[in-house]
Amino acid sequence: MSTTISPLAPKSYPKMPPIAGVRIATAEAGIKYRNRTDLLVMVFDAGTTVAGVFTRSKCPSAPVDLCRANLGQGSARVLVVNSGNANAFTGKKGRATTEATAVAAAKAVSCGANEVFLASTGVIGEPLDPAKFTHLLGEMARRAEPGLWTEAGRAIMTTDTYPKVATATVKLGDADVTINGIAKGAGMIAPDMATMLSFVATDAPIAAPVLQELLSKGTGKTFNAVTVDSDTSTSDTLMLFATGAAAKHGAPRIDDPRDPRLQPFRRALNKILKNLALQVVRDGEGARKEVEVTVTGAKSARSAKKIALSIANSPLVKTAVAGEDANWGRVVMAVGKAGEPADRDLLSVWFGDIRVAHEGERDPAYSEASTSAYMKRDRIKVRADIGIGRGKATVWTCDLTKEYVAINGDYRS
Amino acid sequence: MSTTISPLAPKSYPKMPPIAGVRIATAEAGIKYRNRTDLLVMVFDAGTTVAGVFTRSKCPSAPVDLCRANLGQGSARVLVVNSGNANAFTGKKGRATTEATAVAAAKAVSCGANEVFLASTGVIGEPLDPAKFTHLLGEMARRAEPGLWTEAGRAIMTTDTYPKVATATVKLGDADVTINGIAKGAGMIAPDMATMLSFVATDAPIAAPVLQELLSKGTGKTFNAVTVDSDTSTSDTLMLFATGAAAKHGAPRIDDPRDPRLQPFRRALNKILKNLALQVVRDGEGARKEVEVTVTGAKSARSAKKIALSIANSPLVKTAVAGEDANWGRVVMAVGKAGEPADRDLLSVWFGDIRVAHEGERDPAYSEASTSAYMKRDRIKVRADIGIGRGKATVWTCDLTKEYVAINGDYRS
Repeated sequence: MSTTISPLAPKSYPKMPPIAGVRIATAEAGIKYRNRTDLLVMVFDAGTTVAGVFTRSKCPSAPVDLCRANLGQGSARVLVVNSGNANAFTGKKGRATTEATAVAAAKAVSCGANEVFLASTGVIGEPLDPAKFTHLLGEMARRAEPGLWTEAGRAIMTTDTYPKVATATVKLGDADVTINGIAKGAGMIAPDMATMLSFVATDAPIAAPVLQELLSKGTGKTFNAVTVDSDTSTSDTLMLFATGAAAKHGAPRIDDPRDPRLQPFRRALNKILKNLALQVVRDGEGARKEVEVTVTGAKSARSAKKIALSIANSPLVKTAVAGEDANWGRVVMAVGKAGEPADRDLLSVWFGDIRVAHEGERDPAYSEASTSAYMKRDRIKVRADIGIGRGKATVWTCDLTKEYVAINGDYRS
Repeated sequence: MSTTISPLAPKSYPKMPPIAGVRIATAEAGIKYRNRTDLLVMVFDAGTTVAGVFTRSKCPSAPVDLCRANLGQGSARVLVVNSGNANAFTGKKGRATTEATAVAAAKAVSCGANEVFLASTGVIGEPLDPAKFTHLLGEMARRAEPGLWTEAGRAIMTTDTYPKVATATVKLGDADVTINGIAKGAGMIAPDMATMLSFVATDAPIAAPVLQELLSKGTGKTFNAVTVDSDTSTSDTLMLFATGAAAKHGAPRIDDPRDPRLQPFRRALNKILKNLALQVVRDGEGARKEVEVTVTGAKSARSAKKIALSIANSPLVKTAVAGEDANWGRVVMAVGKAGEPADRDLLSVWFGDIRVAHEGERDPAYSEASTSAYMKRDRIKVRADIGIGRGKATVWTCDLTKEYVAINGDYRS
């Protein structure tokens, strides 16, 4: 946890309403950090459905393994998250820790061990001793209360400089339902999955397969479209819980993803996912600027996204943005190296509304002064039109600063 | 050109012998830099054969287009290289510049325009006015002399902190032949191709198709196995010229790549390519440490190289090395994100000879003190054994420091 808050942090935080059927507690377990909370318990009422999307890393953490195994069940009663230790690459010890934690959590809320979900974030390869926190779970489950969403966001932080929360209330049928989300992540952020950890809950009564469909589709243009440093965590976890409590005041139960009543909910959920994903980018380690990269005119949407990520992950593009240098030649380089269909002589590049390059060369109207002035903003938009098709994609990243190097050169030691 | 020389620069430079049939001149054309040479002319005797390997960027520079077009001819009489401006993404103006340069160079040495080869390195997107240097070519060709290889290496530098040269003399049949090479490159360095510019010449009499085979095969484990920042230049060019002058003192003419007499030459050439490629890495922008990444036990050699590059390009691995932090968890992360077959529980990781992780968890004998001591060296070896096959690959990179960000945040402005 850094002492300096990112200059891109939100100016104000939303007041987080409770979600009926969800209770929250946090604690200072002292796993690694001192004088801050590092343990989160979220208790769900019986009947809560669950969906999840996880890292595509071939070396996933032990908690990711456990979540994947328990997801088939489709029901959730308790989530336990710790910060300070990722319980990743910890071998048999890691599995023993997740098993012990699941047993203790199941006992704390009187549920089956397969209704427990776990996440851990922090250093990799360090054994996580469950005795440091399992004894706290019973007491935490008893005192858990509905309103503590921002506190929850705070307990799961590592190098984050601010807690990330988002909320929305929308109609499901004629009833109001609420969606709350929290996220953490600041480095080791790259698509598939792009967050480190994010947990979203709603009181809407939605069946688990529908929930999974909503979540899987929702990540493509949100969490899987942000990148801080192209590095994919072993622990990336995004989960969506639906308590169904809104059924008591008339919300319809949704069992079909094509149900038209789901549309406002889907839109609101996607907005929350995007909101949280952008908060992660804006808290990118050392970030001073948010960068939105849009690629148009590519051969396909998939090709556009690959080119956009090539631009967004280029250290030379990111350092140029850090230096407030309108170095569009590096954007051209990044288009060229993406390996996707492109024709140099049809390519155009914009910074904001300023077209800097057109049809394979510098725009005749290019003004260094006005482009340099634009680069001083704290939100930079880069657009590249490939000129050969209709494929389009937008991704978000941040600049690469000396502070990123400083943070990651001595994070563990 | 930086004023501080990389701490990884060679302690001494070899004395470069002349290559019979090659004459060299450099000049201060003032294209962008002041008070240093920025123009190189290399004149080859009639009968010189040529081979080349170029960037795979979809947005190649105008000189790369010209070299590719002239390569079919297989013969070379003159090479013109300028630093300070890449003549890349310069549209029709760029083509006009290469045409004007080729005409002037052909006139200077009385050859066909298709026996001219060009390379440019420096800023992208800025038109390169041929009038700045074409008038110098005639005079340079006249005064060109054999011994100026180190001066040639110096004239093509951009952000390099030292000129890169290498030489070897080997037997071809019963005769001695010599191979000389120069290279430049410090950023925008990634495989396919990994150098920005490198030129190698020999007096051996070798036919153009054989030369091309030698060069294409030689790059895989040398220039295409180094990476500074994963960014691929628009201008990457590696050329090999063979004057054949050694035939006069009995070197056999080689027309078949399988000719057994070629073996010592092939080994020496590969050694020079690797030497030059490593010099590029050791001059990586802001580099303080050289990192050798070896992956063993992968499913195939191709898979091993992909995993090795995932490790070598990871900003988190590279910043950990910069911070002298034995953060092997980030190596695990980079193996996991490579997308290649891997099994967490079979994975082992070494720093130097110290095994830090074994069979999916921290090595029981792990010592933080001895590993930290190892990380203070200026050459770090990282090895990951995937444990599932026999595929093996080695790649080289450097650490990611605050200086990389500083250099690239204000290189152009």
